[in-house]
Amino acid sequence: MPEIEYKKMDSVRLSADKHSVVIIDQTLLPNELKYLELTSAEQMFEAIKQLRVRGAPAIGIFAGYAMAVLAQSILDEGFLGRLSQLGSYLVSSRPTAVNLSWAVERQLKTAKKAGENARSALIDEAVKIHLEDISTCKAIAENTLSLLHEGDRILTHCNAGALACSRYGTGLGALLLAAERGFKLSAVVDETRPLLQGARLTAYELHNAGIDVTLICDNMAAWLMSNGEIDAVMVGCDRVAANGDTANKIGTLSAAVAAKHFGVPFYVCCPYSTVDTSCRTGADIVVEERDGSELTELYFARRTAPEGIGFRDPSFDVTPAELITAIITERGILRYPYAF
Amino acid sequence: MPEIEYKKMDSVRLSADKHSVVIIDQTLLPNELKYLELTSAEQMFEAIKQLRVRGAPAIGIFAGYAMAVLAQSILDEGFLGRLSQLGSYLVSSRPTAVNLSWAVERQLKTAKKAGENARSALIDEAVKIHLEDISTCKAIAENTLSLLHEGDRILTHCNAGALACSRYGTGLGALLLAAERGFKLSAVVDETRPLLQGARLTAYELHNAGIDVTLICDNMAAWLMSNGEIDAVMVGCDRVAANGDTANKIGTLSAAVAAKHFGVPFYVCCPYSTVDTSCRTGADIVVEERDGSELTELYFARRTAPEGIGFRDPSFDVTPAELITAIITERGILRYPYAF
Repeated sequence: MPEIEYKKMDSVRLSADKHSVVIIDQTLLPNELKYLELTSAEQMFEAIKQLRVRGAPAIGIFAGYAMAVLAQSILDEGFLGRLSQLGSYLVSSRPTAVNLSWAVERQLKTAKKAGENARSALIDEAVKIHLEDISTCKAIAENTLSLLHEGDRILTHCNAGALACSRYGTGLGALLLAAERGFKLSAVVDETRPLLQGARLTAYELHNAGIDVTLICDNMAAWLMSNGEIDAVMVGCDRVAANGDTANKIGTLSAAVAAKHFGVPFYVCCPYSTVDTSCRTGADIVVEERDGSELTELYFARRTAPEGIGFRDPSFDVTPAELITAIITERGILRYPYAF
Repeated sequence: MPEIEYKKMDSVRLSADKHSVVIIDQTLLPNELKYLELTSAEQMFEAIKQLRVRGAPAIGIFAGYAMAVLAQSILDEGFLGRLSQLGSYLVSSRPTAVNLSWAVERQLKTAKKAGENARSALIDEAVKIHLEDISTCKAIAENTLSLLHEGDRILTHCNAGALACSRYGTGLGALLLAAERGFKLSAVVDETRPLLQGARLTAYELHNAGIDVTLICDNMAAWLMSNGEIDAVMVGCDRVAANGDTANKIGTLSAAVAAKHFGVPFYVCCPYSTVDTSCRTGADIVVEERDGSELTELYFARRTAPEGIGFRDPSFDVTPAELITAIITERGILRYPYAF
């Protein structure tokens, strides 16, 4: 049976009694580091929907544990049918997250194959998914770091570090690995409106790791690039289409266009499993639109816009392949034109 | 003696007794429409510094009235010297605002020329500055509107409307004029981090004028452009260099780069007085950096970033002339390459 030694910043883990998934509630950072124990499918659905657990790989790890935990209390009769229902329910909490459906599918296969040993097999497989992710993230970080120079100032958008993944993360992997090795890089962090993952999470993680962090508003990135203050952009992503078009947190496209204009390399760092060859191009990726309250009320002490106006609140955008200098996975460094 | 009939949304006016400048406190919008009476130079300095009065033309109008009001209580002995000192003090509140020093200079000349009638001449000149601005803004709006088509979806950044100027404003002029005429345009409004002038002020003004308003985060503009949802970008500006490089609210460059990439026209709308031929290019424009608290605390119910990290907080950026489709002033529509 595979084992895992959890660390303080691991955003997802299995409880010792195997009856709950324990997460860091990422909506409370940077003000409070609080762990939540989730036991019901409804709690798990809510945790994904409300972004308490977030980041494509972390959601995959979460889904692996979630299926294993939920399986413990399903009756033998109709076991696979009920597990499949619960899986579909979890997947519906966040349709853009390919790692979510990937992990659910993997666990359904595990259960089918294991037959009457399904419950313990699901636990083992969940731990295996987590260990694989740690190893994948480290390989991505190594590959990314090979493209950087000591002293580089790295712009990053949203949060693709330990909280979003495991240990090194994806978009932040090179920064965290470099910090371990005393290889000096500094970080410029987009605050990432509307949910402020950059300000709340990325700045928190990188500062904790001893990295020099400069927080900016998203709309300042182009100006810093125009002044020669950014050497590379590194982001994670939620989904990569077969041609390299990449869906990531809203604002990624804006940073990519500016990087292209000012000649700054733009790197997408992700596990190979994020590539979804069933999407031919970015046009096949459905972008979730949220309810807009985060533009006018959330986080604010008072309303910041008048009542009665319209809004748009896309959660992701799609960056065309030709704006991406390299897509970096655990398998290596890929360059445009992309073919997976 | 020139006269002016003030309207509800006029952001700057002279009190009936001519002993104070009355402004709308723009920091309280959209939650409260409150007028402030300012009588001392310190109050006036604070109002500019804290952005209670803001927008390049409005600051010019404000400075005209401020000099006239302050002159009423200066003794005859050393009158011009003292007036000049007060003018320099006001100018130091916001070095980027060329209209501020322009209006102060104009009032100092008025006072010199008028001799012992300086106090009444300064009042007349202040009203004249205001009337000129109304007429200028209407001409800019007419010129801008001539470039648009019914149904166009206009992206705007920051706030360049009635609050920032007078009546029609600059960047919002075509929208407000079109609304008066029943010519249908709709507005997509960048919230404009960090001070949220778009969400708080532009959305408020345009919605009040009956215009269809869609609020977005700044980092969503590129995504909407990539989907063909923006027909033109219109912004005001704080200063135009002799070659057309334009300083405006931070984030303008980001919108301009995206507009260029996606083939969307990008219009800068401003009075001709905003052109500062003493700046050869944008490189000569000094960009003010603010104290960063607006990134982590201001407006927020709780801190949104950890203590101890660095930040950058430039208030403006400079958009190179080649990214600007046209610079539209009251004198007409200028196109690249620019020569003033």
